[in-house]
Amino acid sequence: MENINVGVIGLGAMGRGMAASLRRAGYALHVCDVREEAARGFAAEGGTACADPGDLGSRCDVVVSVVVNAAQTEAVLFGEKGAAAAMKPGSLFVMCSTVDPGWSVALERRLAERGLLYLDAPISGGAAKAASGQMTMMTAGTPAAYAKAGGILDAMAAKVYKLGDQAGNGSKVKIINQLLAGVHIAAAAEAMALGLREGVDAEALYEVITHSAGNSWMFENRMAHVLAADYTPLSAVDIFVKDLGLVLDTARATKFPLPLSATAHQMFMQASSAGFGQQDDSAVIKIFPGITLPEAKA
Amino acid sequence: MENINVGVIGLGAMGRGMAASLRRAGYALHVCDVREEAARGFAAEGGTACADPGDLGSRCDVVVSVVVNAAQTEAVLFGEKGAAAAMKPGSLFVMCSTVDPGWSVALERRLAERGLLYLDAPISGGAAKAASGQMTMMTAGTPAAYAKAGGILDAMAAKVYKLGDQAGNGSKVKIINQLLAGVHIAAAAEAMALGLREGVDAEALYEVITHSAGNSWMFENRMAHVLAADYTPLSAVDIFVKDLGLVLDTARATKFPLPLSATAHQMFMQASSAGFGQQDDSAVIKIFPGITLPEAKA
Repeated sequence: MENINVGVIGLGAMGRGMAASLRRAGYALHVCDVREEAARGFAAEGGTACADPGDLGSRCDVVVSVVVNAAQTEAVLFGEKGAAAAMKPGSLFVMCSTVDPGWSVALERRLAERGLLYLDAPISGGAAKAASGQMTMMTAGTPAAYAKAGGILDAMAAKVYKLGDQAGNGSKVKIINQLLAGVHIAAAAEAMALGLREGVDAEALYEVITHSAGNSWMFENRMAHVLAADYTPLSAVDIFVKDLGLVLDTARATKFPLPLSATAHQMFMQASSAGFGQQDDSAVIKIFPGITLPEAKA
Repeated sequence: MENINVGVIGLGAMGRGMAASLRRAGYALHVCDVREEAARGFAAEGGTACADPGDLGSRCDVVVSVVVNAAQTEAVLFGEKGAAAAMKPGSLFVMCSTVDPGWSVALERRLAERGLLYLDAPISGGAAKAASGQMTMMTAGTPAAYAKAGGILDAMAAKVYKLGDQAGNGSKVKIINQLLAGVHIAAAAEAMALGLREGVDAEALYEVITHSAGNSWMFENRMAHVLAADYTPLSAVDIFVKDLGLVLDTARATKFPLPLSATAHQMFMQASSAGFGQQDDSAVIKIFPGITLPEAKA
């Protein structure tokens, strides 16, 4: 594996863990981040810190992009010192952000015009699973793109779903997951808020629901934050303002109605406007008036 | 246990299983149902079929009511040949239906005026778990009511949550569970509908979501019905028209907003008006136009 040069652009909570997984697997690793010190700090334990995406792209056979959204991906590829112009023909760009599926489809075409391969490969699972190589990837791309990726995807993820032989379905399944995740967080908040309004003990409600048919992955995970009064943002309210926005934009393109997604989106925007945009997404419960939320234990 | 006479009123999917559990546990069992042949058929394998709730009430120390709603419970207790007038002072009425919590609180008081004990004890888990004694009960009531129930609750349920020392919290937690269950079924339908609209393979979408953070108990359970095109009603669309209605009525009593519950309620009513009220609740997906649902496999 040592002669395959792999680059990771974006060393946030997810990218840092994915880069560490690739380094553990023995790939010749290159990293870069807009915060240069983040790249240098990471490379101090192995790998090469690159100055910019262009520098990284010129050195790598496979470039894995783990930035926040489509706009940052555009900058990484086509901005000043971008990767696209520097990458060798036949090399591969792996796009791990949550984006409009139509944009991802178009990106495959734009990179093909430059002789570059593309994988539509959004990720899921959170920072802890990224660090341990246990996250999930939802991927789609050409057979040539998968062949170029080789064992790199499995080195980063416990489960690599292959959803189609061209870009699009990876991003589509990812935003459908975000639709459910967003609605479930808002529904969990609504249910807990009603319980508090009705004088039900919050801990008892949590215990019953997590053992009943009303449970969801998000209820179990996020309402634990509410019970602990810990709104430290593992994932922030504004992420769901963005992601449910992408869901609604995708459906609007074919005039398809999504009543619950639209309602949940309004709830996250209400929370953001009220000043909670940078808090944990469970802070959407703060839009409900007339209740007293649990306080942090002394 | 043989000298404790226990009655079960209502031998539907849940009541039949609960009565069978009590019979297995060795209680002197009495049953009745508006369909007299249902009671006679059940008693053919053990127990006593009673002609009406009054007849059953006069014979039993504990009466377990497993009818559809508050109106049927009123009829069972206070209608012609009702149980309330027939039950001996100090005996116990166990109310297992999903009802307005305020009505349940009032019922405790009305029965106390007649010298009768009361448990607010909605159930959850479905017919299979009821039959095997593995269902859940969400209960609240006075210490005297629990003392009178003795081991009867544990004979019917794997998990008996005790949520308060007077009626109310059992029904409150039950309707909060129904809030989540209803929103999750509608959200599952919305997500699957978007996937079909976008051309994603339905089986692949199910596989990814059930292994991701977007999963819920209801997505996993009900979308299997959609994939199999099996809308046989294990629980019908009209049950959620009723139950989300109870949720909204409860919140409206204190002018509390529930945006997602209100939206999901509209979706179930749209499905019911379109003619799907008696189909499985997953048929709420049929409100989405412009998609082709999976067909039953040959």
